[in-house]
Amino acid sequence: MTNRRVLIECDDEKGLVYKVSTIFYELNLNILSNSEFVDSENGRFFMRSVVTTESSDLELKDRLRALLPKEAQIKIVTDERKKIVLFATKESHALGDILIRYDSSELDADILAVISNHSTLESLTSRFDIPFFHISADGISRKEHESRVLKCLRDFEQIDYIVLAKYMRILTPEFVTLYENRIINIHHSFLPAFIGANPYKQAYDRGVKIIGATAHFVNNDLDEGPIIAQGVSHVDHAYDWHGMQRLGRDTEKIVLSQALKLALEDRIFVYKNRSVIF
Amino acid sequence: MTNRRVLIECDDEKGLVYKVSTIFYELNLNILSNSEFVDSENGRFFMRSVVTTESSDLELKDRLRALLPKEAQIKIVTDERKKIVLFATKESHALGDILIRYDSSELDADILAVISNHSTLESLTSRFDIPFFHISADGISRKEHESRVLKCLRDFEQIDYIVLAKYMRILTPEFVTLYENRIINIHHSFLPAFIGANPYKQAYDRGVKIIGATAHFVNNDLDEGPIIAQGVSHVDHAYDWHGMQRLGRDTEKIVLSQALKLALEDRIFVYKNRSVIF
Amino acid sequence: MTNRRVLIECDDEKGLVYKVSTIFYELNLNILSNSEFVDSENGRFFMRSVVTTESSDLELKDRLRALLPKEAQIKIVTDERKKIVLFATKESHALGDILIRYDSSELDADILAVISNHSTLESLTSRFDIPFFHISADGISRKEHESRVLKCLRDFEQIDYIVLAKYMRILTPEFVTLYENRIINIHHSFLPAFIGANPYKQAYDRGVKIIGATAHFVNNDLDEGPIIAQGVSHVDHAYDWHGMQRLGRDTEKIVLSQALKLALEDRIFVYKNRSVIF
Amino acid sequence: MTNRRVLIECDDEKGLVYKVSTIFYELNLNILSNSEFVDSENGRFFMRSVVTTESSDLELKDRLRALLPKEAQIKIVTDERKKIVLFATKESHALGDILIRYDSSELDADILAVISNHSTLESLTSRFDIPFFHISADGISRKEHESRVLKCLRDFEQIDYIVLAKYMRILTPEFVTLYENRIINIHHSFLPAFIGANPYKQAYDRGVKIIGATAHFVNNDLDEGPIIAQGVSHVDHAYDWHGMQRLGRDTEKIVLSQALKLALEDRIFVYKNRSVIF
Repeated sequence: MTNRRVLIECDDEKGLVYKVSTIFYELNLNILSNSEFVDSENGRFFMRSVVTTESSDLELKDRLRALLPKEAQIKIVTDERKKIVLFATKESHALGDILIRYDSSELDADILAVISNHSTLESLTSRFDIPFFHISADGISRKEHESRVLKCLRDFEQIDYIVLAKYMRILTPEFVTLYENRIINIHHSFLPAFIGANPYKQAYDRGVKIIGATAHFVNNDLDEGPIIAQGVSHVDHAYDWHGMQRLGRDTEKIVLSQALKLALEDRIFVYKNRSVIF
Repeated sequence: MTNRRVLIECDDEKGLVYKVSTIFYELNLNILSNSEFVDSENGRFFMRSVVTTESSDLELKDRLRALLPKEAQIKIVTDERKKIVLFATKESHALGDILIRYDSSELDADILAVISNHSTLESLTSRFDIPFFHISADGISRKEHESRVLKCLRDFEQIDYIVLAKYMRILTPEFVTLYENRIINIHHSFLPAFIGANPYKQAYDRGVKIIGATAHFVNNDLDEGPIIAQGVSHVDHAYDWHGMQRLGRDTEKIVLSQALKLALEDRIFVYKNRSVIF
Repeated sequence: MTNRRVLIECDDEKGLVYKVSTIFYELNLNILSNSEFVDSENGRFFMRSVVTTESSDLELKDRLRALLPKEAQIKIVTDERKKIVLFATKESHALGDILIRYDSSELDADILAVISNHSTLESLTSRFDIPFFHISADGISRKEHESRVLKCLRDFEQIDYIVLAKYMRILTPEFVTLYENRIINIHHSFLPAFIGANPYKQAYDRGVKIIGATAHFVNNDLDEGPIIAQGVSHVDHAYDWHGMQRLGRDTEKIVLSQALKLALEDRIFVYKNRSVIF
Repeated sequence: MTNRRVLIECDDEKGLVYKVSTIFYELNLNILSNSEFVDSENGRFFMRSVVTTESSDLELKDRLRALLPKEAQIKIVTDERKKIVLFATKESHALGDILIRYDSSELDADILAVISNHSTLESLTSRFDIPFFHISADGISRKEHESRVLKCLRDFEQIDYIVLAKYMRILTPEFVTLYENRIINIHHSFLPAFIGANPYKQAYDRGVKIIGATAHFVNNDLDEGPIIAQGVSHVDHAYDWHGMQRLGRDTEKIVLSQALKLALEDRIFVYKNRSVIF
């Protein structure tokens, strides 16, 4: 008897809940939690159920497949620990926050490796006995750098999510496509404000009274991927941009860890660049 | 074809969603939204559905009644405007906030009257052409005062909610029992901190850095009823308690109006002094 | 013996506090509060003191003028009620919030008039016995409309601030110049995100998890004036853009009223499009 | 030429700023920042200035001493790194957050040691090459346990602050007196709500919609010391108390680190159990 997360997404039509719950009932599943949402603007139905079952996943999936619309996306996921790889550059706060959660078993995932274009964080990473791969980008093309990163990733049998813990490089469309909606980034602004370089400097120059951070899936438009979580802090005129940056780091790391938790618990649907989160 | 809010609360058991959705399906209801929650600590099931239906409420209720556990609480509510009475004393911010929403049709309710133990707010109330009843408590017992209030209330055919918009008097158990989970109060603290008199003074004396407000249903333990909504504001040493009070009023009025909106949309369940809000 | 707010802004140099406090001491002023800030990036000094004095303002100003740098901006302001004019269009929440504060004497200002390009809010305004001027923009040029508005304003002897309480028209540079840093606008987004039309629709499309509002002085770049105050609310996928708008209105009105309070208390300095707020 | 933080606290009287700034001026100090506050309820004056000086601290102090009231508390502090000791028990989030900041040099202090009544966090602490002292409380009296802790502390020449990073034991009055206003605790509730054991369980039972954390100096009344910083998170009915605890940990660690930063920068005054923070 194990837990399953059943994730369903399809065009809305009458009777979807009836159909799904009938199957659950007939298979004698026990429903631990159930969330549904209809995006009425787009006529799209989303459902996430956590169930305990003695049936095989295959049987459950077949039954759902038979009753639901053809285009329905159906996922049945166990709650076993997922595998993640962290990308970082020089700043340690986001990486460190994840490592501490990992060390205390709060993070429900295995960290396979930390990959960085700098060696700065090797010492911190090694404190936690996690493999660190320094893949320098110096003197080589973006393409070449990424092919080295990909080579490194290929050594891992399974990678569920890549977490950009303040990874200060832009990924190519080819790379992003390989891990669609599986790369989580933390952007150090309240997107869509201050897209691009040095958002804290931009925020300071604009004289904002609130700064923010945004965790999002990466797609091919820089800083434009679907937003998962956002957080803010209040600032005043006494903050120069370095002060904003220091304060903002706390929001960044918490928001990234929250987004990662949502992903690890299979709570995030993405549709038309917007997220539905149960 | 009208909208119905179907509210179900009962002990949890397998197949509840199946049963309800089967009935919805067989009656050809269209489900606009669906929320369920199982309080696993207490083994209690809560469900709120918004549906459009051509069936009679009676038929729907009968069908649900037949399939659900005997002790199930089933309510079928139309989305027609509810009737409310506001109680106030001297402060105008919470009352005023509701009046402005009423005036702009944002408030989805009819305000039958404002009742106050002082005449201070008569002028404001009359600006909105709403009946104002000044029922002074001077020189009479609490019992006598309440019986006059009740007499006034009895003139109204239907009262869905009584809103205590900074009504600075304590209601007797007899009164509260008459309107169980239908009296909404705003308490000017982050309950359960600072129960009782002058919470801002208490907050100042304690040197807190955050003040709050709490909207809750009134029960017979002072300031102990089920919480509906809470809000906070940040303060620092420069705030004396009057400053905290001035700032806090903004949170009070917003939190009360939010709680009232949740009540008017039939989104609040109460179980064991805790609220489940969809 | 009356209260004075002494506002000083000048290039930073050694001894400024010494010089000012010496003058205060020699004139036997009583200092109620004192705030200073040095913008070290720009080398700019800001000071706001609240004092009680028996000296004349003239003497105090002369003494300060003599000791401070030539370019220093020195203002000595009494705490008497300021005069404001409100501009609005059709939405009532921001206007209503100010009117309620006015009615309860919380607002420390006289409202001379409400001016609107629509007649919608005449009824609400007249409930508070405040003159309402409907100056329609139908069929006339922006220039012509503004000249009618200006004509209306000229009838008032003194206008300290113009408050755009959801006034949905763009002011011309000529108009803005007449009231530099005296026009307060509430923008219904977390600026600089979603500049321009229908920010809630933009926010919904972008799938943000937090929405905001921004009070700012109006300058000649649309939505680019110095920010005074900002506020946010959390949203999720269940909010369509109308829901965001409804929720956002609460933030809008509170943030605008907060900004107005700061202005009425002479707490805002503006330098290089950024505000320093004591 | 080094930076000094000049901290002054005394009963309020006319001319204090004048006197201090005169001394600063005559000693040719450069003022980097200046904050003053008068607690008018208690007639108490607080001032914190950051200055650069070529004078000796002794001279500056003597001059201030000569001019200020006799009872004035005057501190002149260099901005050199302070020394701290961390106390912890079993939970790692607050400790880990400080260690990560320490590792990245964000924390402006030396961590002399981690002391714990359990060995759980030895592994984490040793990852950062910081001495860990496991001082078990098993089978010995509170007095005896504390005397062992004190013995351990005495080996350090200088301890500026003791940080209770989720240290789940109560300190005796004798201990607290030794480190008055130098022991910083993080309490896992929005004090003064939920004083005592298991505040998250209490919060769940009460059905609150917001949970909080409070950093405060420890005095001899349990959970009653002066508050330094507070933070909150929003929860709903779907959170059981373990979920509240998990979420709350993020607030706890951030609030504790913020409070520690304020202490390390000498920004906190304490007067009558309330903090004044510049």
